[in-house]
Amino acid sequence: MAKPEKHIFVCNHRRPEDDPKGCCLARGGKEIRDAFAEEFEARGLWGRFKLNTTSCLGACEHSPGAVIYPEGVMYGNLTPENVTQIIDEHLLGGEAIDALKVPPDVWE
Amino acid sequence: MAKPEKHIFVCNHRRPEDDPKGCCLARGGKEIRDAFAEEFEARGLWGRFKLNTTSCLGACEHSPGAVIYPEGVMYGNLTPENVTQIIDEHLLGGEAIDALKVPPDVWE
Repeated sequence: MAKPEKHIFVCNHRRPEDDPKGCCLARGGKEIRDAFAEEFEARGLWGRFKLNTTSCLGACEHSPGAVIYPEGVMYGNLTPENVTQIIDEHLLGGEAIDALKVPPDVWE
Repeated sequence: MAKPEKHIFVCNHRRPEDDPKGCCLARGGKEIRDAFAEEFEARGLWGRFKLNTTSCLGACEHSPGAVIYPEGVMYGNLTPENVTQIIDEHLLGGEAIDALKVPPDVWE
């Protein structure tokens, strides 16, 4: 396995249902992970990009979130539609999407 | 939260006990995560370094493993003693440790 061009870590942290912080898993983190996987599969992108789920990334107010390395860009409030945009513009196009990033006080 | 200098992802993937591939969790992945956390706490390194657990990193024959970004170095067959060495030499010293890396055919 060659080192991937980009490594995507989608938060799938789970908290108890009554926890006021909520969690990425309750707010669609699994669907975000699955959206990346489905597009990677459909477009033949496995190998170029690696996908993992992670424990809490610490941007709970902007869940569901994900961080992409090696550049270390963190996105928040993700929807499956955002995933398509991230693949097109960031992973394939090489340009991170400022409008989807978490605020600089969360991750600068 | 400022972007960390280094972001450590320790595989904590779990497979069924009878799975011949085994898994990082069964081979000490939690202890490796905990060893990083304990040293970060003891040395006041939280903030500079961020620690997460992840799903399968794909280096199962060299478990337990971890990947460190932004440089994208993957280590395998980790012990708690290795964690101290990684913190001293790699995270603080800036030099990745070739002897602890997984083989290039796994992650080059």
